Amino acid sequence: MPEQQHIILPEPTLRRLPWYLAYIDILRSQGVKTVSSTKIAKAINVDSSIIAKDLSFLNVRGKTRIGYEVNLLSEVLSNFLGFKQSHKAVVVGVGSLGASLIHDTGLANYGLDIVAGFDTNPALIGTEICGIPIHNINEFAQVREATDATIGILTVPFTQAQDAADTMVAAGIKAIWNFTPCRVRIGEGIVMTSTSIYAHLALIYNRLEANGSL
Amino acid sequence: MPEQQHIILPEPTLRRLPWYLAYIDILRSQGVKTVSSTKIAKAINVDSSIIAKDLSFLNVRGKTRIGYEVNLLSEVLSNFLGFKQSHKAVVVGVGSLGASLIHDTGLANYGLDIVAGFDTNPALIGTEICGIPIHNINEFAQVREATDATIGILTVPFTQAQDAADTMVAAGIKAIWNFTPCRVRIGEGIVMTSTSIYAHLALIYNRLEANGSL
Repeated sequence: MPEQQHIILPEPTLRRLPWYLAYIDILRSQGVKTVSSTKIAKAINVDSSIIAKDLSFLNVRGKTRIGYEVNLLSEVLSNFLGFKQSHKAVVVGVGSLGASLIHDTGLANYGLDIVAGFDTNPALIGTEICGIPIHNINEFAQVREATDATIGILTVPFTQAQDAADTMVAAGIKAIWNFTPCRVRIGEGIVMTSTSIYAHLALIYNRLEANGSL
Repeated sequence: MPEQQHIILPEPTLRRLPWYLAYIDILRSQGVKTVSSTKIAKAINVDSSIIAKDLSFLNVRGKTRIGYEVNLLSEVLSNFLGFKQSHKAVVVGVGSLGASLIHDTGLANYGLDIVAGFDTNPALIGTEICGIPIHNINEFAQVREATDATIGILTVPFTQAQDAADTMVAAGIKAIWNFTPCRVRIGEGIVMTSTSIYAHLALIYNRLEANGSL
């Protein structure tokens, strides 16, 4: 398989590729061997020209009148998305949400290997969740170095979000996955992605209200 | 407080309002009484004209040279975002992620009241997680009606996403919060929001790779 992961993909493409993978894996589970971009387009409601363009980033092209090979496309997609490699991550803030993410073993299927948690709560420090040790945040730098984790999952109370992010970056974390409702500021060259659970809830409530369903 | 929640807010505004609320609540916890839009703008890196426009949807206006009242703005924002009301929700698919969301009691602070879970696994049916009963998916319609839940949280394996969504909508669910990597199709008038955990992971991996950090 060609080495191609250094390509910086546009965000909309990165948003759509997991949809294709999920659909392709459904087909694979049904024993389907090939699929056309038209069929993918119909199933997931994305224009087939967009699909062909997105997949061209992966150097995958369908064959005329046959389409894409399902097994190959699944393998290329999940490799390309990084789901087949292991990426070491730490969770900072082992409250309700942080502990939930450590419990969510499903993330490992998508290449996320959580190796440690951190908190300031003495009742948590020194314990384990699903076999993952919870450390004092004071030990962040040394544990980060020892584990060589590059991804920091930020699940602290929002009042501590910026401080925790600063601690992570100072200790060598290269990417922050922010689950707090805060706009955290980080330096250049650090990757930052936010999963805006609270914004999604607000959107649901607002649209329900607008529909008269509340 | 004026009734104003029927306004359909633009998605970018709904994404930013929780940032303002988080920052305002940090100030409140510090005993700060008033804040200017310039100070908010600086803290969260959003242009102050955008902040003023977003807040004008809430009929909140700052006073010249004083700015916004912190306590009032916090109250108006969290009311407006729906975080102060209780919204009944059910979780469909009590695997790793679904169970995690039921465990995440923090969601209740944002107005989400999970009242039941559903699964097809006989080992789960009839059990409770954090006091929330787990039912057979066959009982969805009657439990939905009895609890009057309007929000369905979709955390099934992706091969079952469309079927589960169809079941929910047929039984009167008005909004689906989709955590699967699938593009689920639903009818008009049903609210749909996706939290694309897997796309966010793919984005982190891709950007790390591009930075040479992997």
